[in-house]
Amino acid sequence: MSAIRVGVVKEVAPGERRVALTPDVIAKLAGAGLEVLIESGAGTAAWFLDDDYAAAGARVVPSEILYGEADVLLGVGRPDLERVRSGQVVIGLLGPLLEPDLMARLARRGITAVSLDGLPRTLTRAQGMDALSSQANVAGYKSVLVAAEHFDRFFPLLITAAGTSKPAAVLVLGIGVAGLQAIGTARRLGAVVSAYDVRPNTRDEARSLGAKFIELSSIGSAAGEGGYARALTPEEQAAQQAELAGHIARHDVVITTAQVPGRRPPELVTAEALGAMKPGSVLVDMGSSALGGNVAGSRPGETVVTEGGVTIVGAGSLASDMATSASAAYARNMAALLLHLVVDAALVIDPTDEIQAGVVITHGGAVVQPATAALLGGTQG
Amino acid sequence: MSAIRVGVVKEVAPGERRVALTPDVIAKLAGAGLEVLIESGAGTAAWFLDDDYAAAGARVVPSEILYGEADVLLGVGRPDLERVRSGQVVIGLLGPLLEPDLMARLARRGITAVSLDGLPRTLTRAQGMDALSSQANVAGYKSVLVAAEHFDRFFPLLITAAGTSKPAAVLVLGIGVAGLQAIGTARRLGAVVSAYDVRPNTRDEARSLGAKFIELSSIGSAAGEGGYARALTPEEQAAQQAELAGHIARHDVVITTAQVPGRRPPELVTAEALGAMKPGSVLVDMGSSALGGNVAGSRPGETVVTEGGVTIVGAGSLASDMATSASAAYARNMAALLLHLVVDAALVIDPTDEIQAGVVITHGGAVVQPATAALLGGTQG
Repeated sequence: MSAIRVGVVKEVAPGERRVALTPDVIAKLAGAGLEVLIESGAGTAAWFLDDDYAAAGARVVPSEILYGEADVLLGVGRPDLERVRSGQVVIGLLGPLLEPDLMARLARRGITAVSLDGLPRTLTRAQGMDALSSQANVAGYKSVLVAAEHFDRFFPLLITAAGTSKPAAVLVLGIGVAGLQAIGTARRLGAVVSAYDVRPNTRDEARSLGAKFIELSSIGSAAGEGGYARALTPEEQAAQQAELAGHIARHDVVITTAQVPGRRPPELVTAEALGAMKPGSVLVDMGSSALGGNVAGSRPGETVVTEGGVTIVGAGSLASDMATSASAAYARNMAALLLHLVVDAALVIDPTDEIQAGVVITHGGAVVQPATAALLGGTQG
Repeated sequence: MSAIRVGVVKEVAPGERRVALTPDVIAKLAGAGLEVLIESGAGTAAWFLDDDYAAAGARVVPSEILYGEADVLLGVGRPDLERVRSGQVVIGLLGPLLEPDLMARLARRGITAVSLDGLPRTLTRAQGMDALSSQANVAGYKSVLVAAEHFDRFFPLLITAAGTSKPAAVLVLGIGVAGLQAIGTARRLGAVVSAYDVRPNTRDEARSLGAKFIELSSIGSAAGEGGYARALTPEEQAAQQAELAGHIARHDVVITTAQVPGRRPPELVTAEALGAMKPGSVLVDMGSSALGGNVAGSRPGETVVTEGGVTIVGAGSLASDMATSASAAYARNMAALLLHLVVDAALVIDPTDEIQAGVVITHGGAVVQPATAALLGGTQG
């Protein structure tokens, strides 16, 4: 039997600079019996050149050959799905919960879709494959740089001949992977950091990184499944918004990271809260998406300044903006998943495996992942 | 005798967001018998609103009244010199050595020009007035944020489930105020930092901030007057460039800070050195100006990417990009100078004072500052 051919596509989403595999993981995949094809130019925007891939043992090919010859197509986002054919496997962050109908169409076309965002994130042996975490980590770091870029004061306390500059007061809302890295990075830069999350078990982690944990009296725990927060009731959300507003007004920089998979992100910073902030304050909304964001008036990919002089950065896709580190981490996640799926140089799809039950969305003509199937009105297949 | 009126102009240079006085220094100036006028909107771009100035005791006035009524016009750069009249005093960073002819014209028009960049910087009692240092400090901090913004990898060493990210290797060329702050900020962010300066006495300061000091074997000391490096001979410069090139190629991020007052900045990074850098490397050229920069091919205010994938940011005026902190520090420098010049609520110009001998460029119809007068062919007046 010939080796499985995995092909890395050049990303097709506008502005996407990441690449699914980096040269440093090629050798390990080859050692497991995989032949790696790279679409020419796939890594260029992340500073991985065709020559680097070739030197690492990959075969750099034009687009037609890649889509034509690969058994498995690897992407960060979705590859060009029009060009994928029956029998091929597609692996990436496919967003099945956002577009279940698209998944159903892939199933009908005989395409096996594997999505890293379906990974059971609380499973220890899956941690090395957790692309959502690795990308959130990059984005959390970058969010602080973006905030510091727009903030017109120093982050650290500085004492010079021209006087003392007091440290920036940074508030991080949402203490997941991104929030924790944002706390750590803001602390590195010398800011005084506070943090809030509706999940009380995040308190100790935030404190261990040097942040003050904000407790709200108006709302109890809202820990949900899979490590995410559950959606709040409208009453809970209103109480949370009102009590947070006072904290927000006392901070110079606010970074919001609250996302609920497949749902509209919760609005944590209302227009009223924005109005109470000092001119020159900066918000970075990492929840920003086409579905809405964590900050009233934020727009994905845009920076807006309110009449009151508050800058809001719609920053829902920061990982791509630090494409080299983001790709390197993603490639390790992808390689770990591939090595998990490959047995004796053959790709083995096994829905009874706990990891595969999460990531394999479509197979054998059916939508097999329970969460996606549920959105379509029951398991199909 | 009525109080001296000092008037803060709205800056006229394109893109300049700083303001010469901030609300927090108004009370102290009023206490010394100065009446402070603010041109309406002068502080807005640095997030100091007209209302803030009014609340601090300043009089916010339209442009015509400001230029008409002020005895002393305060700016960061030059005010609108066409509107300044005989008998008025102008204080700012006027760049007399760059445009001595302009200074001569101001003298002939009976304008007293006081320039903070003439300050004797090695004089301890002048340190609180040292605007070049305070602005270089801001710019040095900002240079690292600009580098981190363009760099597609993490600065710190990070160990996660998706592998280890090695720290960025940052090289700072020129260890003055800006270079030292760049070293400190890059270290804060977790980078491994090396630094080089042609003045050997900078070594200990760089090391105390955690940087490795690079010694070149091809060139000895080039310490010059006033704390600046002297200009190198063409042979020395070529030897320096060649030896530096090897170091530059081993770094991911290079920040250059070398300026010689009134002269073309030295080229520290040649086209050849650029060609040896890895794709994805970033240079921030703080020496960048209309006269040229420290990096071959850098353009002031622009970001260019070489064919080899190296990003060069022409960043000669970074202080304005962090306008709040920069203005706050500048305002303290300006206030200290004003309080030095004011005796019994009157402005006393005294060229025998060591500080005034440096900063007073024109007075009584003549160019009186020796360095500027020398460029004009001898003391005029």
